[in-house]
Amino acid sequence: MFEAVELGRELDKADFKAAEPALRTRLLQAQWALQREGVPLVIILAGAEAAGRAKVADRLDKWLDTRGMTTAAFWDETDEERQRPAHWRFWRRLPGRGEIALFFDGWYRRPLQGGTLGELEGADLERALHRNADLERTLAAEGTLVVKFWLHLTAEQQSRRLAKRRKKEQKASQAARRARRHAATALEAEPEAHYAALRETAEQTIRATDTGESPWYLIEAGDGRHRDLTLGQTLAAAMESTIEARAEQGAAGPAPVPHPAPEPAGKAPSLLDSVDLGERLAEADYREQLKARQRELHELAWAAWDAGRSLVAVFEGWDAAGKGSAIRRVIAAMDARLHRVISVAAPTDEEAAHHHLWRFWRQIPRDGYATLYDRSWYGRVLVERVEGFAAEADWRRAYAEINRFEEQLVEHGTVVAKFWLHISDEEQLRRFREREETPWKQHKITDEDWRNRERRDDYRRAVEEMVARTSTREAPWTLIPAEDKKVARIRVLDTLIQALKQALAD
Amino acid sequence: MFEAVELGRELDKADFKAAEPALRTRLLQAQWALQREGVPLVIILAGAEAAGRAKVADRLDKWLDTRGMTTAAFWDETDEERQRPAHWRFWRRLPGRGEIALFFDGWYRRPLQGGTLGELEGADLERALHRNADLERTLAAEGTLVVKFWLHLTAEQQSRRLAKRRKKEQKASQAARRARRHAATALEAEPEAHYAALRETAEQTIRATDTGESPWYLIEAGDGRHRDLTLGQTLAAAMESTIEARAEQGAAGPAPVPHPAPEPAGKAPSLLDSVDLGERLAEADYREQLKARQRELHELAWAAWDAGRSLVAVFEGWDAAGKGSAIRRVIAAMDARLHRVISVAAPTDEEAAHHHLWRFWRQIPRDGYATLYDRSWYGRVLVERVEGFAAEADWRRAYAEINRFEEQLVEHGTVVAKFWLHISDEEQLRRFREREETPWKQHKITDEDWRNRERRDDYRRAVEEMVARTSTREAPWTLIPAEDKKVARIRVLDTLIQALKQALAD
Repeated sequence: MFEAVELGRELDKADFKAAEPALRTRLLQAQWALQREGVPLVIILAGAEAAGRAKVADRLDKWLDTRGMTTAAFWDETDEERQRPAHWRFWRRLPGRGEIALFFDGWYRRPLQGGTLGELEGADLERALHRNADLERTLAAEGTLVVKFWLHLTAEQQSRRLAKRRKKEQKASQAARRARRHAATALEAEPEAHYAALRETAEQTIRATDTGESPWYLIEAGDGRHRDLTLGQTLAAAMESTIEARAEQGAAGPAPVPHPAPEPAGKAPSLLDSVDLGERLAEADYREQLKARQRELHELAWAAWDAGRSLVAVFEGWDAAGKGSAIRRVIAAMDARLHRVISVAAPTDEEAAHHHLWRFWRQIPRDGYATLYDRSWYGRVLVERVEGFAAEADWRRAYAEINRFEEQLVEHGTVVAKFWLHISDEEQLRRFREREETPWKQHKITDEDWRNRERRDDYRRAVEEMVARTSTREAPWTLIPAEDKKVARIRVLDTLIQALKQALAD
Repeated sequence: MFEAVELGRELDKADFKAAEPALRTRLLQAQWALQREGVPLVIILAGAEAAGRAKVADRLDKWLDTRGMTTAAFWDETDEERQRPAHWRFWRRLPGRGEIALFFDGWYRRPLQGGTLGELEGADLERALHRNADLERTLAAEGTLVVKFWLHLTAEQQSRRLAKRRKKEQKASQAARRARRHAATALEAEPEAHYAALRETAEQTIRATDTGESPWYLIEAGDGRHRDLTLGQTLAAAMESTIEARAEQGAAGPAPVPHPAPEPAGKAPSLLDSVDLGERLAEADYREQLKARQRELHELAWAAWDAGRSLVAVFEGWDAAGKGSAIRRVIAAMDARLHRVISVAAPTDEEAAHHHLWRFWRQIPRDGYATLYDRSWYGRVLVERVEGFAAEADWRRAYAEINRFEEQLVEHGTVVAKFWLHISDEEQLRRFREREETPWKQHKITDEDWRNRERRDDYRRAVEEMVARTSTREAPWTLIPAEDKKVARIRVLDTLIQALKQALAD
């Protein structure tokens, strides 16, 4: 889930200074519009320790009009609070119409901290998360805008920050040190284990509460300027889209749907840019590796059948990235009785008459069998989103719907693997031309493919948001460098082999 | 929760025959309109064993146009189904646009059966229910109408039906007997324990999944004709309101909001009619009982303080039913440091600027203390509903919001007691006149009170739906006969004493 925000993006001071004035104006105008509309706004700032929540809060204090704005940290619990249900402390501090409340962690403090420290587990953690989702649904239904940020650090970034902080603290007052220690004891004792536990808890938390009405925004927090500017722009976009939605639907309309995270500030690389497309594989090596992998997969497929474990493999990727040929290498390895390939095209009449997930539910494999999807249920957040076939509220809601769907597959014991086959713009163009020039490949290239190319940037954004919102530990996306088809095929086989091996070892 | 459908309502053959033709026309017209609109309809028939699900299905088969309508019982699970996630069997049978699917228990089969037999408990049961609520939300978001019925029998009614059935089965084929036995083994072995377990599971199930978008309708099933006609009318109303909503908001609007259950067929008594208002208490007896009860409550309030258990007592009732004087008798018994009375009037500016539950959250007591509410958060589903101060979608959603709120109180350890003080129309008129004629009582009677009287029937309906949807085991409503104020006060004190005693014994 966090791959999309582990890109090492930075922003230099000059770029930050250049962008800041416009953003401040935007934020203030959005804030005043929300005031006029009487929309309460809750901003939740969560994230890894040392990711900079306090700094972000300072920045927002500077950028926004602080009248009607309150900040609450919730780090110490009063007697008063302990003696009432856990949500009381949040309810009493909720903003009124036109007000803003900035909450450090907010109602996620207990699930995040408890989950990380192992004090809140399994069903209890799930219940707490359900309760949070309920609360947000309740607030959204009466028009409150809830914007949730997760400030993300890698383990290395965090440990560097903590070391720096320790140095600084030598000079801090004793009281400040004591307050800090209160929060960070477990972290100091076993930083790596703590980081891993938090990361896992955060993933579960975000997945369970990332809804169409109040989505989570993952913010890369390794660089302070990049962090603050991206967060500010995301916040402005969310406020603006709420104002737009109310202008269209009136105040009594359904809950506002915040916009996706805007592009990260600066000329930083995006998630797909981070895929290394340089790797090549010699024909002889490829032949040898392919043979070995296919043999292994053949055995694993039978072992999975024997163990009653099913496999769902999703293939998405750019046009001409080689989905079909990668799938052929996979099924060549498996006994024909064990697999099925579903090519997903426009829905049939019958399919269109049902919920968009219906046709995919119908096709999931029985225990022991594999289904490979050449395109999939992700069409809703890719082509349907980009081409406007689905309304924004519909595709926004789909992330959660898809996560729930895959969760049920995984819970049942199905192994879920998802591939995005990535190629460069130039390579795609080369392949398109080749298709046009090769008689037996001409059927593979249509006007639509050329049109899609023009929207490559929109698709890229959709792909990146899809990966950020639906890559989970149990049903991860694997980004496949497909510039060399041979590399792509071997990577796909490797990933499937690993996934099956692990499942069968469990 | 089930009090509202344990009234022994019946319908004679002639009344049924008289009402049937109009209902059939209504149902067909609604069905055709849904077809034209392309709305899929899922009808879930759940209920106690022998409550008549099959008979209702037969009746609906007769009443509705069976083209595009399918029925599924889900009582035996196939290999195919076992080898996929539990919801697969439901997804594959979901209706398409304009189609109707009638499901026996549907996705509630496993939670209901598992919960009753103790095979699915605690967190696992909760998770299954959450998953169902998720599924229904997902379907509603794409325009599917889900109508859920719980056919209710009392234990006595069920045991009579089962005895009758056993007789009949002597004559049934062996296969039919075997099929029946499959379902009913646990029930036959220990009918009373089974009934109690089912009732408890059903309450939890309904409470967890009774949402604004797809509410449960409780149907009294003791009399077949009454059951079928009420269910048919409720179904027709739900279909009609969906069509209306789509006419207003367009097909792309939010999920349809079904109407409340219409009045039960025939001249049967309603829930409030079932309160026995005849009881009277002589002055001397009253004095004596009052003194004893107050002494007991005094001690219990201190014991609760000592144990850190808080109390929330809600007083609702007809105008002039004696809420204030009942509250005075309660607080007279408690040390002044331990209690607080909140008189709920129109919200202040600050309160109106927040979510409707905000002001009630603020006022909940700390551990060991009591708060008595003279009117309460139920205003939304009473006066705001009847007077149209809240939109239908808002007050419909409020039942679930309130249940979640009280759930959190109970979970925290707060004792929750809710009173509806009931008086007859005539007695209310007498008291109003008396107030007008008594100088020191004149301030207690306003034009509004007279206006409310005229809407007594609307209020009655709202009260009855409120009790049906929000009376839970942990936070039950107590209907207080208040025709004699002395009786009412003693009953209130008794109820509080019992509730505190039980809580302190736990």
